Amino acid sequence: MKAVGLVAEYNPFHNGHRYHRQQAQQVTNADVVVAVMSGNFTQRGVPTIVDKWHRTREALQNGVDLVVELPLFYAVQPAHLFAAGALRLLAGLGVHDVVFGAEHPHWDFRQLVAAEKDFQTTSFHRYNATFATQFNQELAKRTGHQLTAPNDILAFAYQKAQEEEKLPIALHAIERVGSAYHDHHLGGKLASATAIRDAVAAGHVPEHAVPPQTAADLREVATVPTWDRLYPLLRNQLIQAPVARLAETYEVAEGLEYRMKDAAERSLDFLSFQQAVKSKRYTYARLLRAELYLLLQASAKEVEAAMEQPYYHVLGFTKAGQRYLHQVKKELPYPLIVKVDQNLKRGLMNLDYRAGKLYQVFTSREQDLKRPPQRL
Amino acid sequence: MKAVGLVAEYNPFHNGHRYHRQQAQQVTNADVVVAVMSGNFTQRGVPTIVDKWHRTREALQNGVDLVVELPLFYAVQPAHLFAAGALRLLAGLGVHDVVFGAEHPHWDFRQLVAAEKDFQTTSFHRYNATFATQFNQELAKRTGHQLTAPNDILAFAYQKAQEEEKLPIALHAIERVGSAYHDHHLGGKLASATAIRDAVAAGHVPEHAVPPQTAADLREVATVPTWDRLYPLLRNQLIQAPVARLAETYEVAEGLEYRMKDAAERSLDFLSFQQAVKSKRYTYARLLRAELYLLLQASAKEVEAAMEQPYYHVLGFTKAGQRYLHQVKKELPYPLIVKVDQNLKRGLMNLDYRAGKLYQVFTSREQDLKRPPQRL
Repeated sequence: MKAVGLVAEYNPFHNGHRYHRQQAQQVTNADVVVAVMSGNFTQRGVPTIVDKWHRTREALQNGVDLVVELPLFYAVQPAHLFAAGALRLLAGLGVHDVVFGAEHPHWDFRQLVAAEKDFQTTSFHRYNATFATQFNQELAKRTGHQLTAPNDILAFAYQKAQEEEKLPIALHAIERVGSAYHDHHLGGKLASATAIRDAVAAGHVPEHAVPPQTAADLREVATVPTWDRLYPLLRNQLIQAPVARLAETYEVAEGLEYRMKDAAERSLDFLSFQQAVKSKRYTYARLLRAELYLLLQASAKEVEAAMEQPYYHVLGFTKAGQRYLHQVKKELPYPLIVKVDQNLKRGLMNLDYRAGKLYQVFTSREQDLKRPPQRL
Repeated sequence: MKAVGLVAEYNPFHNGHRYHRQQAQQVTNADVVVAVMSGNFTQRGVPTIVDKWHRTREALQNGVDLVVELPLFYAVQPAHLFAAGALRLLAGLGVHDVVFGAEHPHWDFRQLVAAEKDFQTTSFHRYNATFATQFNQELAKRTGHQLTAPNDILAFAYQKAQEEEKLPIALHAIERVGSAYHDHHLGGKLASATAIRDAVAAGHVPEHAVPPQTAADLREVATVPTWDRLYPLLRNQLIQAPVARLAETYEVAEGLEYRMKDAAERSLDFLSFQQAVKSKRYTYARLLRAELYLLLQASAKEVEAAMEQPYYHVLGFTKAGQRYLHQVKKELPYPLIVKVDQNLKRGLMNLDYRAGKLYQVFTSREQDLKRPPQRL
């Protein structure tokens, strides 16, 4: 059986994702579709609109055959770590083709990656601009391309990861369809995930833009999960923990611990907190990720150690997906987890388990322990 | 000027407290009444129904002349530490008479304290009963008295502290009036603080049982502060922090860290959490205090160090109280704090400051920084 790999958040699964899945299969002539999907928190560090099990079921009902969780230590990361983690897992699953959407699918991402090799990234440590901005100015100077659209950035990261780790994977960039990622306007049968989430937050499920399973799931969303509801927990962590301990947190350092503690003491709501913390040096996504690691009390040491020990947590499969898994499971480079037990909860999967407990702020359902994969 | 000292929680200030204040003045013939009062969390580790500033104003309007905060590291403690801390502060304030209510004011508490000196308390470490139960069985055997009523227990603790620290304080036990402490029935013009809080929680302010200022304050209470609202914060702390760090917390050890982590993982609400944690070994008050220190991420090391450095945080005074403070302030054994500044916030008063930030879950008003005393 030949598989095509996708890297997804499906937050939630919409018609654009279904079209993308079809295209991926067509382009590669694959028998099965394997998706590596973020868990309950996205790359930007925000809670997903419905949990990973619902999103898995949505994907399975729309032509994805196997859904594997991208562990939090890969998922909630800047593009280069997110992309590298996802491709590493897919390569280990015997996937030789990965298809992804990009804003500029016809760019030669190999050339961009080659251009980057000459950068003196050490000179990017200006404090009045994000790393991304400085990186981009340099790239544009050399190649004429602005790497600013989110899927172009990921495309670049896939290319770079593939080369660096010499992964036996062919990358296929295809055109993203429908509304742009940040487009808030609904139209036709396509809408961006952002527009869909905004509609649900406003009390309206955009049925035309999502498959039936997604529509059913979204109708059950009483309150869209947001950072506003996590903020009391974050605030108390920032106020009560000594700065030295805050500074041990993954992605919190360089004085961010003081800045955040001070902002938390002064800010009673998340919006004012973020405004108080934001500077030209950090993007909001960078801050949100750091804030999530603060809530998980995850130290740099812990996250870095976890990144060295990935695994395959199977969230769901169709019959074809199950056959494929059976075909590849003896060759997997990392442990296969079909059901989380007490040992995995305390050990290998501890960070994902804790993220699932945090997600219970939004939905009381246990997210990991003893949950079997979704089957279709 | 001659002062009489009271030790109070005023949660909230009610007619019984006013009567007690009158009696105290009468018994001792004092010119001014000085109260040492718990801050925003009680001895049992629960958030007060209104904040310390409101409760101070209630006291000032009903004959108390000077209100000093009992720091959290003395206030949220078992009776012996609570009593010793309060008496130490009062003695330092030049108070030579302390009046308190007891269920059995005519007992000879000196005799009880003397009897205790022969106890082999090391034999009290049975795990199927609280320390208090074992202590009581021994005391009853020797003196015929059961030390089970909350104010008798405090009376005993005052006597013991007075003797141990040789404080120049005369202790006057007087009869508690009106409903018993745990009596839930309102009647006449007197009601216990518990009954008053329960009435407010049920949506009714028992105006007949409280002075006008308290009635006004209680009418402003939208939701009575409870642990239910703190539980999401406690739960996340217990889930995310490693057990080794939980075990460093003040009053958390002897395996309580494992028991609490496990209960937090399994319990979505505070009631089920408490039921899962409770054992014969610990009282609910003991657990609540430990849980509060967990929320404050206060280590044993931190709290023990803080207990060595008490201070006088003045919450309010009448004109007479101000004159009295002026009279004694040069002789105070500990620092006098009239307004909390950045240094005090980060230093001496840090634990109280953090408790005030935690209390902002209930009321958004800043509790310490830059707040001047209430004046009447």
